[in-house]
Amino acid sequence: MSDVLPQGSVIGILGGGQLGRMLSVAASRLGYKTHIYEPGANPPAADVAHAVTTAPYEDAAALRAFAGAVDVITYEFENIPTSALDLLESLKPIRPNRRALAASQDRLVEKAFLNDLGLATAPFAAVDDLEDLREALAEIGTPAILKTRRFGYDGKGQVLIESTDQAEAALAELNGAPAILEGFVDFFKEISVIGARGLDGSISCYDPGQNKHEGGILRTTTVPAAITDMQRTDAVLLAAKILTKLDYVGVMGVELFVTRDQLIVNEIAPRVHNTGHWTQAGCTVDQFEQHIRAITGWTLGDGARYADVEMTNLIGEDVERVPQLARESRNQIHLYGKAEVKPGRKMGHVNHVF
Amino acid sequence: MSDVLPQGSVIGILGGGQLGRMLSVAASRLGYKTHIYEPGANPPAADVAHAVTTAPYEDAAALRAFAGAVDVITYEFENIPTSALDLLESLKPIRPNRRALAASQDRLVEKAFLNDLGLATAPFAAVDDLEDLREALAEIGTPAILKTRRFGYDGKGQVLIESTDQAEAALAELNGAPAILEGFVDFFKEISVIGARGLDGSISCYDPGQNKHEGGILRTTTVPAAITDMQRTDAVLLAAKILTKLDYVGVMGVELFVTRDQLIVNEIAPRVHNTGHWTQAGCTVDQFEQHIRAITGWTLGDGARYADVEMTNLIGEDVERVPQLARESRNQIHLYGKAEVKPGRKMGHVNHVF
Repeated sequence: MSDVLPQGSVIGILGGGQLGRMLSVAASRLGYKTHIYEPGANPPAADVAHAVTTAPYEDAAALRAFAGAVDVITYEFENIPTSALDLLESLKPIRPNRRALAASQDRLVEKAFLNDLGLATAPFAAVDDLEDLREALAEIGTPAILKTRRFGYDGKGQVLIESTDQAEAALAELNGAPAILEGFVDFFKEISVIGARGLDGSISCYDPGQNKHEGGILRTTTVPAAITDMQRTDAVLLAAKILTKLDYVGVMGVELFVTRDQLIVNEIAPRVHNTGHWTQAGCTVDQFEQHIRAITGWTLGDGARYADVEMTNLIGEDVERVPQLARESRNQIHLYGKAEVKPGRKMGHVNHVF
Repeated sequence: MSDVLPQGSVIGILGGGQLGRMLSVAASRLGYKTHIYEPGANPPAADVAHAVTTAPYEDAAALRAFAGAVDVITYEFENIPTSALDLLESLKPIRPNRRALAASQDRLVEKAFLNDLGLATAPFAAVDDLEDLREALAEIGTPAILKTRRFGYDGKGQVLIESTDQAEAALAELNGAPAILEGFVDFFKEISVIGARGLDGSISCYDPGQNKHEGGILRTTTVPAAITDMQRTDAVLLAAKILTKLDYVGVMGVELFVTRDQLIVNEIAPRVHNTGHWTQAGCTVDQFEQHIRAITGWTLGDGARYADVEMTNLIGEDVERVPQLARESRNQIHLYGKAEVKPGRKMGHVNHVF
């Protein structure tokens, strides 16, 4: 641990949402301070951060001051403008690295990267115009989903195409953004692996969790997932392959579709992940601390699972159920301190320990 | 939960040490912000607090501004000057209440309170001068410990008296502070109960832990304690009796000596307690969250223990063992972000899960 960042060092975090908030808490447990960079005012992470910069990602002076005030930079979301990354990278180490961001910021690049690694993905085709889309639909068939290549999350920037005559309308809905058409995968279940890779190249993965989405938003993650031992091993090996190929440092979320005969990679996220929140109640070292350990040069923590857990997101008005949830035993509640309740907004989550 | 403090409310914490730090983290999990009041600069809790006031407890203007900025006030140590409490209490609710503080700030008042409740303590006598001390030694015998009535912690303000001819020197060492002579208790083991009482009067106690001290400082707490079921039940009932009598709201630490035939109360602490740190690794809701739940009007959380844990304090240079401890599995490490290592200084702790 000779390269370990000393206690009292400052970790810069791009993005001030709930992931940044929980990363800040984890950083404090290891004796570190955090500095949040976030364009929006009063972000959730600010409540537990040592310092906060409120500035857009286009503000070079603010970015420079931020880099000067921190020892290492990480992020809680992947859609950070390239210009900001270029500047920051010239001043302080960014972990996970740019290669991981490049592979996840663009769905087309991501899928090509995964296929090159020998990993299965949904069938896909690049779509820049109506002609591309018609060709893609002919090849992939319907139903299919047209997605923007960049900046999509929680089901945003996606249009379902059920028949070819919807092509033009679907394309119009994306306002001319570069897109990708993805075929449907006939899967039994969706799982995800939360993997981590340390500065020393060591890898530790948590037990895969099984996910349930509603309306494009994660509703629950349950561990253990109802998969075979073989599938469990394959999922972990596959995540390790991705982490190593990217020379990755930090925690990554890998979403997988489980079909009858294979694991298909749906998406990789170069950050702590909503499907890893269960680790707060089921492991000695949770995903947030694991990420902080990785980017500060600590040995990775013990990712062994010692409890069965179901994590449920509290979305929008779900938060009104908190008084009742608080009364039930074996519930660990996490609220993000967001003042305004909006439909679809993640307000908190509950880890129920079995 | 109609009186529950709404999300986004601010909890004022008197004291900015590691307990305040971990209370701040727990507050964030329930959607609250914290404001730390601490005379010293850059206290550990400041790293994870929404706001910090750096001012002495004698600064009425600072106290007033602090009270104006928070919704409820709590504290991480009991030796807060009375004048500060008088002022704050007139402006915002203080939880736990003054009665609890009065009973724990003065060893003489504390022991009288416990005896009045029918609970056993070590034999004791008030000592204001040499004559008192000689009489007390004649009654209690030696060895005995002369302690200041107020403001003692971690073995400070205590003198061991092994024979009566040490009386004068012992008294001189306390510089004329009002004192108490305590007889020794012939105990097998020391345990402590971390109990909580909610705003609604409900009570929840964690499983008693067994403590080992070295040089007057807590070294380890282990759960389960090696006690009988009867002792376990008695210890919890005894803690509940104290909580109810004080109309207490919050978490309290009750240190007990286990002798052959009874439980003797050593000390009560009206706050989260070092001997309750194990709850971070062994319970769904830890003592810090339990305290925040109590003082903000939440239902108390599930205090059931689901793992065996040994908590070890990292004192002074122990912190240099962290790289090795981080490599061992089932260790959960907590560092307090203290820049300077001093002998006897609590730098962090490790929860080892069995």
